[in-house]
Amino acid sequence: MSDKKAQIGVVGLAVMGKNLALNIESRGFTVGVYNRHRNRTDEMMKDHSDKKLIPSYTIKDFVDSLEKPRRILLMVKAGGPTDAVIDELLPLLDKGDVLIDGGNTNFHDTMERNAKLDKSGINFIGMGVSGGELGALHGPSLMPGGQKEAYDLVAPILTKIAAKAEDGKPCVAYIGPNGAGHYVKMVHNGIEYGDEELIDESYNVMRNVLGLSVDDMAKIFHEWDQGELDSFLINITADILTRKDDLGDDKNKPIVDMILDRGANKGTGKWSSMTALDGGAPQSVITEAVYARYISMMKDERVKASKELPVETEAISIDDKEAMIEKIRQALYFGKVMSYAQGFEQMRIDSDRYDWNLKYGELAQIWREGCIIRAQFLQKITDAFDKNPELKNLLLDDYFKDIAKKYQKATRDVVALTVKAGVPTPSLSAAINYYDSYRAEVLPANLLQAQRDYFGAHTYERTDRPGNFHYSWYEEQ
Amino acid sequence: MSDKKAQIGVVGLAVMGKNLALNIESRGFTVGVYNRHRNRTDEMMKDHSDKKLIPSYTIKDFVDSLEKPRRILLMVKAGGPTDAVIDELLPLLDKGDVLIDGGNTNFHDTMERNAKLDKSGINFIGMGVSGGELGALHGPSLMPGGQKEAYDLVAPILTKIAAKAEDGKPCVAYIGPNGAGHYVKMVHNGIEYGDEELIDESYNVMRNVLGLSVDDMAKIFHEWDQGELDSFLINITADILTRKDDLGDDKNKPIVDMILDRGANKGTGKWSSMTALDGGAPQSVITEAVYARYISMMKDERVKASKELPVETEAISIDDKEAMIEKIRQALYFGKVMSYAQGFEQMRIDSDRYDWNLKYGELAQIWREGCIIRAQFLQKITDAFDKNPELKNLLLDDYFKDIAKKYQKATRDVVALTVKAGVPTPSLSAAINYYDSYRAEVLPANLLQAQRDYFGAHTYERTDRPGNFHYSWYEEQ
Repeated sequence: MSDKKAQIGVVGLAVMGKNLALNIESRGFTVGVYNRHRNRTDEMMKDHSDKKLIPSYTIKDFVDSLEKPRRILLMVKAGGPTDAVIDELLPLLDKGDVLIDGGNTNFHDTMERNAKLDKSGINFIGMGVSGGELGALHGPSLMPGGQKEAYDLVAPILTKIAAKAEDGKPCVAYIGPNGAGHYVKMVHNGIEYGDEELIDESYNVMRNVLGLSVDDMAKIFHEWDQGELDSFLINITADILTRKDDLGDDKNKPIVDMILDRGANKGTGKWSSMTALDGGAPQSVITEAVYARYISMMKDERVKASKELPVETEAISIDDKEAMIEKIRQALYFGKVMSYAQGFEQMRIDSDRYDWNLKYGELAQIWREGCIIRAQFLQKITDAFDKNPELKNLLLDDYFKDIAKKYQKATRDVVALTVKAGVPTPSLSAAINYYDSYRAEVLPANLLQAQRDYFGAHTYERTDRPGNFHYSWYEEQ
Repeated sequence: MSDKKAQIGVVGLAVMGKNLALNIESRGFTVGVYNRHRNRTDEMMKDHSDKKLIPSYTIKDFVDSLEKPRRILLMVKAGGPTDAVIDELLPLLDKGDVLIDGGNTNFHDTMERNAKLDKSGINFIGMGVSGGELGALHGPSLMPGGQKEAYDLVAPILTKIAAKAEDGKPCVAYIGPNGAGHYVKMVHNGIEYGDEELIDESYNVMRNVLGLSVDDMAKIFHEWDQGELDSFLINITADILTRKDDLGDDKNKPIVDMILDRGANKGTGKWSSMTALDGGAPQSVITEAVYARYISMMKDERVKASKELPVETEAISIDDKEAMIEKIRQALYFGKVMSYAQGFEQMRIDSDRYDWNLKYGELAQIWREGCIIRAQFLQKITDAFDKNPELKNLLLDDYFKDIAKKYQKATRDVVALTVKAGVPTPSLSAAINYYDSYRAEVLPANLLQAQRDYFGAHTYERTDRPGNFHYSWYEEQ
């Protein structure tokens, strides 16, 4: 071991931990590295013997290899393994040291750990890391939450390793206390589910209503990527559609046609929707995206149902395919705006609930590069909150109002058409229904409250005076 | 205190506890009653001095007043208060005694309590009780879950106090181990949310697209109640729409027009959707009903948004209103079938997950009377599972297939029309999208899996061979 101490240590050298360690080292820092099984450490040191890395083979040596106050980034599996490492580290740490959990941890767990460790004077940062393996190596989007003074201790490193947006700003910011960082990463992932589902629905409509080929669609997504839909996900979709199979007999077949339509998930989208439900946030576009994955997983049932269930649809003939493609593009953008409006509404509700004081404009800003949902579009969200930090809903900002004005007609047409054609668009349908509900001065919840008061004496509010009232439903009039 | 012991005791004499105690007493049983504050007990004894009730004023006297093995029904607030009563009772109970929690408890809590008490040899039944105050008094639908031998000890009482269906069968059955009873009650409540939202959307479409008056709609719902939609909720909706205001200046105004459109909730619908998300069940119709309540609660925001947000809708002129009303009726029934298909799918998934061995046909049977979703329609579900106990989805049963065949066209028309008219139908839209997704042999999740493999190396499955594969997206081809 070298006499020089490391400025930060990384525990867990699987691909994400290793790449983050290398990223940090490449910015001029000395990094302590430790892995529970020494083979990963040995391998890393063999491949990167020229780097400013200090390997340790016991947790004690690792802790001793770090400058004080110690900065330790945990890149281990969420849940039990994270607790196990924390328990091992705790007796070796000093007050003021900073632990950073960079795993995909549920923010409720982060809140608990932050509170528990705070009692021992140890700072705990739960940090969302987005961008996958390549992002970790070259520049991820980082969402750290925890003690502000702890953030200040690690900010010089995080700022250097984060992705940089076009304007040069790093894609990292202090998110808020305790679980705020992992929470925001969770909402990011939920939004990602929504983006993907809306793209996949658009693809499905072009394919099954317009009968377009995979080649046609590759060109269309490529064109869309040049305009206001410009984003990482549209970009890779265009690329995916150009790719041919690399395994089957016919290497000219588009790879998408060889991929089974079972959409898996790792749970963060589901957490996001469960949290929305728990907090009272109407997050329907993303939730439908989660459910779409669930239905897709029921492949065997669907194949059976496709043969047995009756179909009564309208034969749709589209005269002007170009016009229809443009409508689909507009609907996709409209749906995306609704999804983000819901996601930011959810964050506002939970920020109040947990007293996090989230800076919404800043969140959009640090998502502009490094992460999966990166897109120029996010600048519009930052602008909206810059103009009005108290903005209740993105839809009330002029830019988004204008999108809603220009693109709602196309959205209505696409949803109406696909519903009649029998091609599912669950997230897009949820998007237009959300818009029409949110802008409804009166919704039929008056009847609902009458029903609830009737069978359960739950009382109702009135339009003409404050208070809660009960109607004598069971007395004859 | 009488020398005769009571066959069952009730703790908690608020309206639900009091009414259940009176219901039990009316069937010939002697009932011990206890309330934390004695004034409720005194009041009950004053009002019912002629009944076979044994009041106690300490928990010890209460326990001593009961026959062994003791049967104790807890009707206290869910959560902390329930735990507090259990902790007080525990040292006074003997092995083999049966505690029944009849509150609106989350099934996860019930599972924990059942396991914990089982260690002391105390049986614990979590029992869903539906039907409100009147149901409790005259005959509720009961959903008890816990040890089978404990159920057998209380079955003679439960069978007598439960509602009776038209064929004379009592609306109670052994649901399954530990949390199964409270779980099924939770799904019941979720289904109730869906039923209410679909009715409320139908009302809203008739009102805002067809321009019908409240009187017109009262007649329509009354007619619908005579046909296949025959149910408690349709029935009370018809009645509600005939009722006039009892408080305002104009007593000729329909009461619904005086009720504020903010739809409250007590959490069980949200639990149901959160559980569906957690377990992988696509329960979109009910979830949209929960979200509809959330949006309705944002009344101030909606009023503001209604003035600011742009509206681009189509002017809809309906020539044949009668035909359109019939389409709305068909769509409502179609939506209801989808909602129940999802609810029963959710129960199948969770029954497997928790090893409950739920009897789906029996569940529908005990919902035919006593509870909020009571309806003749439920017999069709029982019939379907009688024909095929292994039925994977209600939609695959001939009766429901036939409904799907007859009514899907109307549903498509209503959704397409309302989306174009700008009148929200979130649950109905979710219903048709669920149908079209479930019967889709191929969904666009192939593109999703390509995206996930592209940015996260999550691998994909293939259509032509088993296994998980990764495509070299980042290598030029």
